[in-house]
Amino acid sequence: MKKAGLLYEGKAKKLFKTDDEDVLWVEYLDQATALNGLRKDIVVGKGALNNQITSLLFQKLKDEGIESHFIEKLSETEQSVKSVKIVPLEVVVRNIAAGSFSKRLSVEEGTELAFPIVEFYYKEDQLDDPFINEDHIKVLGLADDTDIAEIKKLALRVNQVLSKLFDDVGIQLVDYKLEFGRTKEGKILLADEISPDTCRLWDKETKAHLDKDVYRRDLGELVPVYQEVLTRLKK
Amino acid sequence: MKKAGLLYEGKAKKLFKTDDEDVLWVEYLDQATALNGLRKDIVVGKGALNNQITSLLFQKLKDEGIESHFIEKLSETEQSVKSVKIVPLEVVVRNIAAGSFSKRLSVEEGTELAFPIVEFYYKEDQLDDPFINEDHIKVLGLADDTDIAEIKKLALRVNQVLSKLFDDVGIQLVDYKLEFGRTKEGKILLADEISPDTCRLWDKETKAHLDKDVYRRDLGELVPVYQEVLTRLKK
Repeated sequence: MKKAGLLYEGKAKKLFKTDDEDVLWVEYLDQATALNGLRKDIVVGKGALNNQITSLLFQKLKDEGIESHFIEKLSETEQSVKSVKIVPLEVVVRNIAAGSFSKRLSVEEGTELAFPIVEFYYKEDQLDDPFINEDHIKVLGLADDTDIAEIKKLALRVNQVLSKLFDDVGIQLVDYKLEFGRTKEGKILLADEISPDTCRLWDKETKAHLDKDVYRRDLGELVPVYQEVLTRLKK
Repeated sequence: MKKAGLLYEGKAKKLFKTDDEDVLWVEYLDQATALNGLRKDIVVGKGALNNQITSLLFQKLKDEGIESHFIEKLSETEQSVKSVKIVPLEVVVRNIAAGSFSKRLSVEEGTELAFPIVEFYYKEDQLDDPFINEDHIKVLGLADDTDIAEIKKLALRVNQVLSKLFDDVGIQLVDYKLEFGRTKEGKILLADEISPDTCRLWDKETKAHLDKDVYRRDLGELVPVYQEVLTRLKK
């Protein structure tokens, strides 16, 4: 397989075509952003860590029967994935109150939720990814009832697997963002990445942040923290 | 029935107890507010108009088999209602894009939606009534699955009746807010008011605002506009 032209450059990844039209080549970048891109920094080593963590998590999910767009890790910073058309939704699953959920609804950060909740955000940078409901998804034509049900089911299955996986290495999976894509056959497939950039992870004992909140909230160096997550997951 | 002590004073209404514990006494006030109460003005005549419009609309809904807390109009500015425990949700139904929907999702004001959509807001002034989804409703303990389904069903039935009613008098029912309460037997009942304060109403031909947007957007005098709505509905 050969890497071909750049298809898309995001905040944390570059996406290239390959000589196989069904396969894309992802390069993870050493870049951290916050405030929807308003703040931006080079963080050497972050790309390699997120690529390795995402590869490991997608492989673990596959072992548990949850398919994703992930094919294989190609290098420290690169992986190959199935080409899918991304559904323009950020799908957030929350197990513990934190971040915007805590602020908007006045629920103390750290409160365990009675059940995992799912939120949808319209993936549209120009609108600041607004929070939407299922009627909005349908009326905007982003997905239909069947797709929404499938996405929610997958998001909650991912939650079961990942919550256990992280719990086993002393980490609480507080909340995280997933994205999904459609294959050309129309199948909904887990896509994008799963990393400390897209998950809120707390040490079970100390409640220390093991995720991008270290950067967002200026709590210290990001790379040693991401390395800690990778090291624990590799155990 | 005798009016008794003040139970609650809201932005546009006062609620009194009566000598019957199952019945409350509502007085509609001559007060207009915007920006969640930050802007406030006396508007003489508004209370009487909203009381009359709400009474008329609740009566029409009853004629179509949709019960509400409304019992009867007591005077120009007063009505009696069944005592219910208000579910802390603002239930918004939208037929045409306008207001916050248009702004947040970049859908041009006036765009007809493919189907009526329902939105829930957590009725909590201190949080500025945040937009929430059904998982939030359940995890916050505001209502359960059965209640949510009943509320949505009722909101959409109300929409069928009111859309036709307004259409017959040359008015588009763009969007509106409903509130629901629980009787002591646990039955979900339509409550609060339905008036140009809680509905966005446009003249079908001229698209002129026949609602509180006249006040919110400083488009002119509010009372003649509310009077116009009442006059048309009385036809």
